[in-house]
Amino acid sequence: MRVDELGERALVKQLARIGYPPNATLPPGDDAGAVPWGGGHLLLKTDGFAYRQVALQGMSPEAVGWRAVTAVASDLVAKLARPLGFTLALAAPGEARVETLVGLTRGAARAAAAYGAALLGGDTNAGGELAIYASGVGVARAVLPRAAEPGDGVYLLGDRWGLSGAAIHAHYHGIPLDAYPAIRRAGHWPKARLEVLALGAVRDALSGSADSSDGLAETLWQLAEALGVGIHLEALPVFPEVRAYATEAGVDAHELVLYGGEEYEVVLVVKPGGEAAVERALRAAGVPHHCVGRVVREMGVWYRGEVLARRGYAHFQD
Amino acid sequence: MRVDELGERALVKQLARIGYPPNATLPPGDDAGAVPWGGGHLLLKTDGFAYRQVALQGMSPEAVGWRAVTAVASDLVAKLARPLGFTLALAAPGEARVETLVGLTRGAARAAAAYGAALLGGDTNAGGELAIYASGVGVARAVLPRAAEPGDGVYLLGDRWGLSGAAIHAHYHGIPLDAYPAIRRAGHWPKARLEVLALGAVRDALSGSADSSDGLAETLWQLAEALGVGIHLEALPVFPEVRAYATEAGVDAHELVLYGGEEYEVVLVVKPGGEAAVERALRAAGVPHHCVGRVVREMGVWYRGEVLARRGYAHFQD
Repeated sequence: MRVDELGERALVKQLARIGYPPNATLPPGDDAGAVPWGGGHLLLKTDGFAYRQVALQGMSPEAVGWRAVTAVASDLVAKLARPLGFTLALAAPGEARVETLVGLTRGAARAAAAYGAALLGGDTNAGGELAIYASGVGVARAVLPRAAEPGDGVYLLGDRWGLSGAAIHAHYHGIPLDAYPAIRRAGHWPKARLEVLALGAVRDALSGSADSSDGLAETLWQLAEALGVGIHLEALPVFPEVRAYATEAGVDAHELVLYGGEEYEVVLVVKPGGEAAVERALRAAGVPHHCVGRVVREMGVWYRGEVLARRGYAHFQD
Repeated sequence: MRVDELGERALVKQLARIGYPPNATLPPGDDAGAVPWGGGHLLLKTDGFAYRQVALQGMSPEAVGWRAVTAVASDLVAKLARPLGFTLALAAPGEARVETLVGLTRGAARAAAAYGAALLGGDTNAGGELAIYASGVGVARAVLPRAAEPGDGVYLLGDRWGLSGAAIHAHYHGIPLDAYPAIRRAGHWPKARLEVLALGAVRDALSGSADSSDGLAETLWQLAEALGVGIHLEALPVFPEVRAYATEAGVDAHELVLYGGEEYEVVLVVKPGGEAAVERALRAAGVPHHCVGRVVREMGVWYRGEVLARRGYAHFQD
């Protein structure tokens, strides 16, 4: 079978299980891989993409390099692991500009430093198009898997919900972002939220977490499907700039929140009764948070009572 | 400037320094990156390649996946780090076969297990051609950098010298390997030598090490140039099967040893006076070893008194 017949979602599910170790401390297909190490956990993650896939209008090579490391850092942080080091592997055609590769590497190094970690070299290869593979290693005392139980509360952490979606929408529709600095910042320079690591102190109040980079709706559907549970969404954060952009662009602001993608924010699943302690920890750490719904027994994802359409990004099929 | 004008060697040298942390415990451009961690060192490495670059005649996707993890494992082991986990990221065109990707992942998982480590998932992306990026993390009590001082002895560890070169030569010249099982094994299923980790016990007798995957001559030139020293090669191991193949193929057996590539073996640099202890440790660990020369003050590489030509493999320029 061809990979474009199978589709990315089914392919990833199949590959993620191959040889995945029985002593792993995160399930296969989670945001990162983890093995026990020194009384805690060692996490490893690789994320690759084509330059043209992610370079939004006006985005510099530095910003793309920053984003590559940020995507990996966000996965590690969502699992409560502190990033220690990153590598950056580049594939480039012979006619690529050295300045572009230097810019990518500089951006990756800046991001690594911003996360208190090191850029530990990388690799370059000839390739048909410019592609970037970032890898990162982190350590955690206790990890947070993709897990949820009926009755749990669902929270969105951070403040990029809808903003990254608006930045991507603006890119594809040629809409200038001069009047929307927060949208531009979320799209060009998203920052992984190291402050989320403070949740380690309230680990017992948590069921699980997921990094959202495929879009909120897709992330929730992945959780629901993998865990055999349902998620009822009741409220969504719609920030003023997202509302203003949506009005100008003639789109539904909720669509930007649900189908944006590349948020690099955390979806947090909190045990019943744990809400107060978790909210206190998030406030103390300065992490914006929004209680958006609840986990139910029946498999599916609903938004205000209606089944939420699944239209996430999938490679091989667009 | 275009990357094919600058060339891979100069590009890698430029990129390797960007943001490389001052507290790193291996120098930029070494076989892996390393930071201090928990009284020891945490090492991270990524290695990428195009499938068609490395799949020799008759090599299965499993063998290519095995090789991807082996290349990374060999770099970690050469620095005296024990591998703990690997990831595998794949880029594939839509028409690629699912079976190929499954095979690559199975091979990678087998290799990880063979090295006592875990395959911790990965990533898939659409790409113009099939490409593989393996990353690995390892830990070491004491690391061994690319270092050498005049007076040091130079050793080749392992038994694939010339054999991997013969396998690559056979591939490009359409020569069947049925009569050469050791050459085929070295080319298709090279195994990183975990036994080399036994050298941790004689770390004080060692100056440095380098993984050889660009070919012996290129590896020695890299060492000489980076360290400002010279290397006098006096003897080279030429194994019977390499000699037989060279005779049949009408090539110089020494050329196969010097310019082979993809050995995934270690070049070891031993302090003067340390030879006996190191040889004892290698014998006890069952690591084949060959004393091949000595480090000198004058920069360069010589083989039996003649300057050794530098003809390593470089991306972007072939």
